[in-house]
Amino acid sequence: MPAFRSGSSEQVAFLEDLLSAGLLSRTGVHGVYARGADFERARLALDALITRTAAAESPEPLYHPPLFPREQLERNGYLGSFPHLAGTVFSFDGDETAAADQLELASRHEDWSGFQSMTEMVLTPAACYPLYPAVAARGPLPQDGLTLDTGDAYVFRREPSSDPSRMQIFHMREIVRVAGRETVIEWRNLWRARAEELLRGLGLELELDIASDPFFGRTGRLLAAQQRDQELKWELLASVAGEPSAIASSNYHQDHFGEIYDIVTADGEVAHTGCMAFGEERVTLALFSAHGSDLSSWPAGVLAALKL
Amino acid sequence: MPAFRSGSSEQVAFLEDLLSAGLLSRTGVHGVYARGADFERARLALDALITRTAAAESPEPLYHPPLFPREQLERNGYLGSFPHLAGTVFSFDGDETAAADQLELASRHEDWSGFQSMTEMVLTPAACYPLYPAVAARGPLPQDGLTLDTGDAYVFRREPSSDPSRMQIFHMREIVRVAGRETVIEWRNLWRARAEELLRGLGLELELDIASDPFFGRTGRLLAAQQRDQELKWELLASVAGEPSAIASSNYHQDHFGEIYDIVTADGEVAHTGCMAFGEERVTLALFSAHGSDLSSWPAGVLAALKL
Repeated sequence: MPAFRSGSSEQVAFLEDLLSAGLLSRTGVHGVYARGADFERARLALDALITRTAAAESPEPLYHPPLFPREQLERNGYLGSFPHLAGTVFSFDGDETAAADQLELASRHEDWSGFQSMTEMVLTPAACYPLYPAVAARGPLPQDGLTLDTGDAYVFRREPSSDPSRMQIFHMREIVRVAGRETVIEWRNLWRARAEELLRGLGLELELDIASDPFFGRTGRLLAAQQRDQELKWELLASVAGEPSAIASSNYHQDHFGEIYDIVTADGEVAHTGCMAFGEERVTLALFSAHGSDLSSWPAGVLAALKL
Repeated sequence: MPAFRSGSSEQVAFLEDLLSAGLLSRTGVHGVYARGADFERARLALDALITRTAAAESPEPLYHPPLFPREQLERNGYLGSFPHLAGTVFSFDGDETAAADQLELASRHEDWSGFQSMTEMVLTPAACYPLYPAVAARGPLPQDGLTLDTGDAYVFRREPSSDPSRMQIFHMREIVRVAGRETVIEWRNLWRARAEELLRGLGLELELDIASDPFFGRTGRLLAAQQRDQELKWELLASVAGEPSAIASSNYHQDHFGEIYDIVTADGEVAHTGCMAFGEERVTLALFSAHGSDLSSWPAGVLAALKL
């Protein structure tokens, strides 16, 4: 088991509030919750607001399921940087005797992992990851590059916690730019202002942070420092149960994915990529934390912005 | 690897049509596709139509993510009946040396499964499964029982195939009744007519079939025969690429889940359960198969029914 992160007493109390209001519901696994009607209404209203905000640049929707080819995870560097966060899919491929043996162990809640073998699938670690091989397969980019929209994609992070903001499976909505270097950098600055405006319009107090990803191990600490030094990642933080929580972020990958997947611009240069990501459950939690657990009593301006 | 099911030449040609129309997009894994804008528009329009159809009985929405507690899979009988279809989630829990070794194997696309261990999560096998423990945790049912709505939940089936109707991960929308025996049986008959009407209203030609689930092995054949004899499952079949495909189905579980989870009615009887399930990608495929790959040229009555 990975280290379990206990939520603060305020975070645990907030989770209890959400549960008793029927906004979330327990499944028995930390960080895996069911969503009740009002939580989902708020989340989908946010999702629609992101759609309206992004509409000006007509991103191409490409909606991937929560499973990602293992082969791509082996290629894209994730297992070097975040081995502790990955989830892989295993399945059974035995005969009837093996099935009976597996069942007997499982019925006693004993270890039946020996009957499971690795499939060609893993859980999707980031909404934008499946886009890069898909874009590469099309050949050189159009003149202005591409802007894509992942929709509200499920992603997985192996981070069991009793803090409701730290879920193991949640929706990440990303708008992704694949183009020449200057274009991506300019686009990213544009979204910094746009994301702030969108979230402030929902009555959230924000802090902008030059941030780093949770890289693994000692080498990871170096990578994180480098990422911060080059300002490759920024986050927008809002308060959830009294603690700042990253509810949106943007990564500039430079030519990382361009190199791996051999994505080239119309001018024959290696493409750069950047993404603007919204953690939909986290934004929704920030909203319930700021405006209370009764959706109908949220401030009128917030409900109007969400068309609720 | 489980047996790969080759699609018929018509099914494979239909998949090619969907890919070239941008309705689906390959990921590199059979049965795992990305959905393009028009496919998703049609699927969500269908999902909204199901919502409108079910509105009369005000089902309670409870939206679960694609992950399900392993402990529940061990309890609910799935591993006895469908061990070949289940997917389990594994993850890494080693130190930096192990991470480096895992990475090296993975980079060469060699076997790194030895570094992965079983987590407490599996992929959700059916949209209704997470509801039963959730309902049980609430105590005795209200007088009239409960009607629940899973929303468009992702479910997993380990069935690699080049037939586009056989996906490994897809959306299943279920309306679920938990109540006394007579109530569930009556409710199920009501939905048989309602589901037929909904789908015929979309211009689909349907066949009703008394069916069985794909139980595993020799014992499975007996279970399947029993299920058919007792008419516990029916399916609505529509043509997809020239072959009948089950696009909706209803199961009557009798007191199977009531017994396992100790769900009792207000009168203290063991609860019965039944569900009405729509395979959203399959219905959508049946629509594209019947009406062509250009959504805007679908018959006016179909577009009107879908509010498209």
